[in-house]
This record gives sequence, C-alpha cells and structure tokens, in this order.
Amino acid sequence: MANQIPDIVVGRLPIYLRELRLLAESENKITTSSHELGRRLGISSAQIRKDLSHFGEFGKQGTGYHTKYLIEQLQQILHLTQEWEIALVGAGYLGHAIVNYNGFQHRGFRISRLFDSDPAKIGRKMNDLIVQDVAELEETIQKRQIKIAIIVVPANTAQRIADRLVKAGIESILNYAPIHLDVPAHVRVSYSDPVIQMQHMAYYLAPQDA
Amino acid sequence: MANQIPDIVVGRLPIYLRELRLLAESENKITTSSHELGRRLGISSAQIRKDLSHFGEFGKQGTGYHTKYLIEQLQQILHLTQEWEIALVGAGYLGHAIVNYNGFQHRGFRISRLFDSDPAKIGRKMNDLIVQDVAELEETIQKRQIKIAIIVVPANTAQRIADRLVKAGIESILNYAPIHLDVPAHVRVSYSDPVIQMQHMAYYLAPQDA
Repeated sequence: MANQIPDIVVGRLPIYLRELRLLAESENKITTSSHELGRRLGISSAQIRKDLSHFGEFGKQGTGYHTKYLIEQLQQILHLTQEWEIALVGAGYLGHAIVNYNGFQHRGFRISRLFDSDPAKIGRKMNDLIVQDVAELEETIQKRQIKIAIIVVPANTAQRIADRLVKAGIESILNYAPIHLDVPAHVRVSYSDPVIQMQHMAYYLAPQDA
Repeated sequence: MANQIPDIVVGRLPIYLRELRLLAESENKITTSSHELGRRLGISSAQIRKDLSHFGEFGKQGTGYHTKYLIEQLQQILHLTQEWEIALVGAGYLGHAIVNYNGFQHRGFRISRLFDSDPAKIGRKMNDLIVQDVAELEETIQKRQIKIAIIVVPANTAQRIADRLVKAGIESILNYAPIHLDVPAHVRVSYSDPVIQMQHMAYYLAPQDA
C-alpha cells in the first residue's frame, strides 16, 4: 500500500515536517493550517492537503492542524520515531563538516561511525567519533545493523565504497561524490552535488560577458 | 522559448554533462550513445533522447553522439562557457569545506568572495580567499555584478542574508541553511539539507526496534 504513494509526495513530507517544527518550537504555534504552511513554503494549500490525504486525516476543516499531532504523525510515517545510526565514509573537509553539523539531532539520525582509509586520520577524534579504518567497514555495519550511509569520498573510489556498503547491508546512501552510483534496486541513493544544482540554476541566468 | 522547456528536463542536463565529461576525460571516449549514457545513469535511452531533442539535434542514428561536441553544446545551453563568480556567506565548517572543494573548477564556477560576521574570522585566509566582513556584502556583490550566492549560515539568519543578497542583485542561491527562503519570483533557490534527503529515504526503510 505504501508503495503506491508517489515518491515526489513522500519527498515533500520532510519539508512539511521541518516547517511544522519551526512553527511549534521556535514560534510556539499550537495550531496551523494548510494555508499558513503553504504560504510559508511557497506551495499551494491544495497541494499540501492532497499530499497529506494520502496518509490519513490530520486536521479539521476550520480549525486546521494541531501542530504537535501532525509532527508526530509525520515522524511516524517517515519512520523517524526511532533514531537511525549512520555510517559516514570519508573524513576529509566535508566529512568533518557533516560530523560537526548539529542538524541531525532530534531529526531522527545520528552519525555513529566514521571511516577513512588515510592512516594519518585513522584513530583521530572528530566530534566525539573516532575515525575507523575503512577495512572495518563491513564488520562494523553488519554487527550494528546500520542501514544508512553517507559517502564523502573522491569520485574515483565512491562506487567501490558503495559496493562494499551495499554488501554489508546498507539500504540508503546519501552520496556527496560527484558521480552516479550503480546499486541494486532495493538500495536508494540520494545525491548532493552543489555544482549540479548551480549548473541547473545557471540555465536561467542571462549570460554575462566574460 | 527557453521558458517552455520543463524545469525537470533542464535539471537533468547537468547530470548528462557530468557523465559525458567522465566519458571524455577519464575514459577517452570519442563517441557515445543514448543507450550507453542511459545504462550508466539508470535513465532510459528514450528519456535522454527526448530531453536533448528540446534543444536540437546532437547525434546521428547509428553513430550516436560525438562526446566533446555534446559537452560543448550542453555547456552553451546551461551558460557554462563563461566562469560565474560565486559569493559564499558563512565561513564555518561547511563553508570551509565548500571553499576547499575543487569540484567547481572547470565546471563553470569560482567562489571568489567569502563573507562572515564573526570578527575572529574576518581577515583570515581560507584557500586563497580572505574572509570579508559581511557588512561589505552589498557593495562587493554590486561592484562585481555577482549573480550567484551560497548561503551557509545558521537557519535563524539565513532569510535576512537572502534578503540582502537579493537586494544586491543575486539571482541564484544555493541554500544550505535548513529553512525555506522567501524570495522574489525572479530569484531561484536550490536547497541542500542532508536531513531532508535522509528523512525521505527513511520512509522506504523497515522500522527497526530502537
């Protein structure tokens, strides 16, 4: 049943959740509406109502949504009532920045393992995590039943790392390496490449004289 | 005319471009085909041909695409034959990682200005760039006619920075702050929030016992 929901709808739920938490936690709003959410997110209120209707009835006409209740429901739908462990591979500048990012806290994830192949980095501490030898990748992931990994290695080693992660049981990969990853159908990859995003936007800019 | 092309099609062009450059530069392939590209990217060859047909005829049936020619054409379509200057705001861990990322080179962009409000950071050097006082933001962007900015500041100051960037003439923003930005219609914002991406993928994972 869950499979019938379009992926693009699923992809908007975390954005609703982020905004709802902002409303509830920073602005102490007890209730909100599809209109308020839509206005704040630049999405039509009809779209929001339609997206949410895939999963149930969360509000009442006239009174809108109880903010905390809708947050809890979205967390349940997205499987965020537990804390997911994450294995991060690549302790370079970006890996370091991700490990130090405190935005994961209370949003369902915790980077619990950090790997690198550089002997100069192995054993070093980064934000309370010890950099482990990437040789220990499979054993650690299997033992701890980690399902999510972040790849922050150079493009020419990313596929090899992905293959090893998948064999060890990883089912979700956030890939920062600027390369497409070839993985089995049961594994999801989400990409983050700032250049791809900027090239996309550059299409809409008027060319300038160099 | 350009406006009629669906944004989702435009968004795939940088991915084709990245793969074509890999083919041309790392594997020395002189020609390729929609089949080869599609297989490598997990996209159907029909989709690739249809996407490219919006912009012209780039290959011949039977012989496929001349790799370098298609690269040049895509660079032209995406306005990447020039080098775009980028202003980056926020010299924290992530800003530091982005400034040190060498993936911008030869892909159409150069981070040329770096701003922060922290007196301890202003004047410091990061990868050949001097951290400027964010008070100089407007003047610098206007003088250099910079059109693209990257926001890497905390969520609670991101909107204020975006407002200032837009007033100074910025038309494309890559936003790493975990917040929706409210900008005028002529400005494009692209978002990068790893937690949003992971929450999206968590939907497809089987919940585990905590």
